[in-house]
Amino acid sequence: MNHPRVEVFDTTLRDGAQREGITYSVADKLAVARLLDQVGVSYIEGGWPGALPKDTEFFARARTELQLQHAVLVAFGATRKAGVRVEDDAQVRALLDSQAPVVCLVAKSDPRHVRDALRTTPEENRAMVADTVAFLVGHGRRVFVDCEHFFDGYAADPDHGVAVLQAAFDAGAEVGVLCDTNGGMLPSGISRVVTEVRGRVTGQLGIHCQDDTGCAVANSLAAVEAGVTQVQGTANGYGERAGNANTFTLIGNLVTKMGLPVVPAECLPELSRVSHAIAELANLTPDDHQPFVGASAFAHKAGLHASAIKVSPELYNHLDPAVVGNDMRILVTEMAGRASVELKGRELGVDLTGQGDAVGRVVAAVKEREARGWSYEAADASFELLLRGELPGAPAPLFELESWRTTVEHRTDGAVVSEAVVKVGLPDGDGGTERVVAVGEGNGPVNALDNALRAALVTRWPQLADVALSDYKVRILGWTGGTSATTRVLVDTTDKAGEWTTVGVHENVVEASWLALVDALTYAVVSR
Amino acid sequence: MNHPRVEVFDTTLRDGAQREGITYSVADKLAVARLLDQVGVSYIEGGWPGALPKDTEFFARARTELQLQHAVLVAFGATRKAGVRVEDDAQVRALLDSQAPVVCLVAKSDPRHVRDALRTTPEENRAMVADTVAFLVGHGRRVFVDCEHFFDGYAADPDHGVAVLQAAFDAGAEVGVLCDTNGGMLPSGISRVVTEVRGRVTGQLGIHCQDDTGCAVANSLAAVEAGVTQVQGTANGYGERAGNANTFTLIGNLVTKMGLPVVPAECLPELSRVSHAIAELANLTPDDHQPFVGASAFAHKAGLHASAIKVSPELYNHLDPAVVGNDMRILVTEMAGRASVELKGRELGVDLTGQGDAVGRVVAAVKEREARGWSYEAADASFELLLRGELPGAPAPLFELESWRTTVEHRTDGAVVSEAVVKVGLPDGDGGTERVVAVGEGNGPVNALDNALRAALVTRWPQLADVALSDYKVRILGWTGGTSATTRVLVDTTDKAGEWTTVGVHENVVEASWLALVDALTYAVVSR
Repeated sequence: MNHPRVEVFDTTLRDGAQREGITYSVADKLAVARLLDQVGVSYIEGGWPGALPKDTEFFARARTELQLQHAVLVAFGATRKAGVRVEDDAQVRALLDSQAPVVCLVAKSDPRHVRDALRTTPEENRAMVADTVAFLVGHGRRVFVDCEHFFDGYAADPDHGVAVLQAAFDAGAEVGVLCDTNGGMLPSGISRVVTEVRGRVTGQLGIHCQDDTGCAVANSLAAVEAGVTQVQGTANGYGERAGNANTFTLIGNLVTKMGLPVVPAECLPELSRVSHAIAELANLTPDDHQPFVGASAFAHKAGLHASAIKVSPELYNHLDPAVVGNDMRILVTEMAGRASVELKGRELGVDLTGQGDAVGRVVAAVKEREARGWSYEAADASFELLLRGELPGAPAPLFELESWRTTVEHRTDGAVVSEAVVKVGLPDGDGGTERVVAVGEGNGPVNALDNALRAALVTRWPQLADVALSDYKVRILGWTGGTSATTRVLVDTTDKAGEWTTVGVHENVVEASWLALVDALTYAVVSR
Repeated sequence: MNHPRVEVFDTTLRDGAQREGITYSVADKLAVARLLDQVGVSYIEGGWPGALPKDTEFFARARTELQLQHAVLVAFGATRKAGVRVEDDAQVRALLDSQAPVVCLVAKSDPRHVRDALRTTPEENRAMVADTVAFLVGHGRRVFVDCEHFFDGYAADPDHGVAVLQAAFDAGAEVGVLCDTNGGMLPSGISRVVTEVRGRVTGQLGIHCQDDTGCAVANSLAAVEAGVTQVQGTANGYGERAGNANTFTLIGNLVTKMGLPVVPAECLPELSRVSHAIAELANLTPDDHQPFVGASAFAHKAGLHASAIKVSPELYNHLDPAVVGNDMRILVTEMAGRASVELKGRELGVDLTGQGDAVGRVVAAVKEREARGWSYEAADASFELLLRGELPGAPAPLFELESWRTTVEHRTDGAVVSEAVVKVGLPDGDGGTERVVAVGEGNGPVNALDNALRAALVTRWPQLADVALSDYKVRILGWTGGTSATTRVLVDTTDKAGEWTTVGVHENVVEASWLALVDALTYAVVSR
């Protein structure tokens, strides 16, 4: 393929903010813009100044607070109202006032929307587009035009949208963006329409896809293959309904699969970090299974592959994960052999050189434990403790357990109360032991035990004050056989710097939880 | 397009189980298979009998416990080992023993994998395929062959994989499935290779795509457009790394966008419910933004379009959401409209004729409770109790609760002991109340409570002696807001005749479990 330069237009801060549950502050928006710039997108659409006060403020602050290296800032807006002179339209004036060098105007391109939503004529609609484009271009702005509902409109009347597009180009628009606003298209349909439209207008075309058929990325790529040169997407695919084409998946595919250098080479390894950071700013859990950048995107569970992966990783990955700043994670499972343990050790930064015997003991321990229901694939912290326990300089246990007891009561007055008492011996530094008895309350037996154990340990290890249980999963493993069910507990724990996962297995669910808790706090002390 | 019949092959229970964090019990697998059958897929791949003991048990139990209406059960397996006679290969024998009518064999079709992973020759590899297919066909099985790493192999050597495919067809295989095992393909590449391969072999082709480029669905559809007639996917796209092609998105697109009736018409509206129920069984949060079936898939953020949507919803949706059992502007809470409740009532054998008011109260109660974290999608028994509670002849509560207390101790001798005391009032038959105090032991606080409550009730209802808790799932629902997390517990309970699921929600995990237990035992008394 001999393509003209293809550019990525990111609309995380405008269309992506339509996703249910996302509410950015202006500071968030500035931070997201900086991150998007770090992955090297060409355009960052920041919002709709004039329509949304927060977006007006964003553009005002961006002038002094945002130094972009790669991207150009874009203001989104509408064409002038029907029957109003463009220079009298306050919304259009606000686009100028934003001082964004590029304006992206939305234009109705489905005749049914012109009639039913805009309640005007196709002629006035085209005049609104032409007037607004010409006015902004006359004031020195570059103008792109989003042709909303283009594909549905094209199916209803192939001439209407093309006429809108041509009106925009004639008035000086630089790019006409074909939008699958309702997201119902498939790649073959996109390909056909783009090819037809390219034959009917002169001007640079863009593509904007929603993911309602699960094909937003593929639709965008089909449009690029058919000749569009601007691709719109959002970080992590955030957007209304099923979301938008995912900017990071687009970049991954355009660069590594289609050979189109849409971002500077040095930016590509920022992809994974930026994806996770934007998820944090949006206050959403990162999708571990997101292509290219997800924590599991290069994780291998099937044990039958682990030894072969060590020899030839390229046979089992579609891409070297380092290219997009990701990492190959090996899941330690019951089928794991020495190769998996060695790879995992390398990933955790544990030097296993000359530790063949220790590796053998870890493999044996993992097999023996997983046969009894333990699972280390999600519990990296427990695995690291197991591994360190077999190596020279293994950390000593934090305490000797004497006993614990936890109680939950539903009292006659309806109150539900949980309490726990923990009795442990702590090393006193002189080779002796100091006996500590501590009590905790909580919203369940495990939460109470966690609070009691931390109360017992926190005077010795003050960092445990910042440690908190953040998630808790229980599985009954009926199928492991024996007379009574085994229970597996996974505990997620956080401190200020991050999160780790530990595992415990026992017939008794609270003892299983206790084992996971002890690993969680031990990890906080020895490995954080 | 004039297509031969296209069939959907679901591998949720085999390849989908490779997703990190998924561990199904055999009962879960049977439940997932029943749900997949309800959406009308043609094939359900249940697992790898012989290799995984749980899968061997699944196929054994499926023979008596699984009555499929639409789907045919498929056993996955490998070809015979290199240098071993097929009739001497225990793994191949286990495939016969599973009694699955269809076997799907995996065959290496990338020459580099044959050399580096299998460590044999292309000739022996083809012989392994041919011998195993012929052996299984000779024993009356239908055989499909998954050509692993087909597309990467095709890029390296276009003849190798085609020869494997032809060997399979020559030996009697019914379908040769082209697998993008590493998931690195884009639709145009899939289209080209499928077209070329179709010109070189005679036989029915299938497609299996992984989502590492975010194009698994589009890749699968491109293959169908190029002539394959079997499409593999997994529920909600669960699978290794970025996951597999999503069975539900595939069905939505094949039926509503491409006009291919891959599932019976009456099954399509089951799509959303089944998607959510399988997420519950996998103990994963349903993806609200999943195309077609997500709770937000047809949700429109307030503002902009609201009034126009009311007038012409078809202008703002790519599809009428009811077609796939979804709803416009739904939250999960709103999935239970009157129609769903009536439908569900009919399914449960509850006559709702003339019960419009009661149905309205149930809809309101479900909405109110689901807003607080309850979920009835997987908890049919709790839903039935809620429904019966609003109808004439509503069953009285089994008992009045005075109080309960449950204790778990890790004693100084290392023994872990759980006990519970339950104090209830039972109706004495003369309008009075008999006070009963009962104690139970168990392998955890909930098991002890279950035993204590059954001890309190079993003299009045002897059938409770045969009732046992069989599975238990806990989910922390941090997102319901407030100062402390809410916990949802799902309890599976069995008696001699079958299994039912109940739900409880509370800040305290043991109180949530108690609520689910009370529903479980009440259901055993009033509905079994």
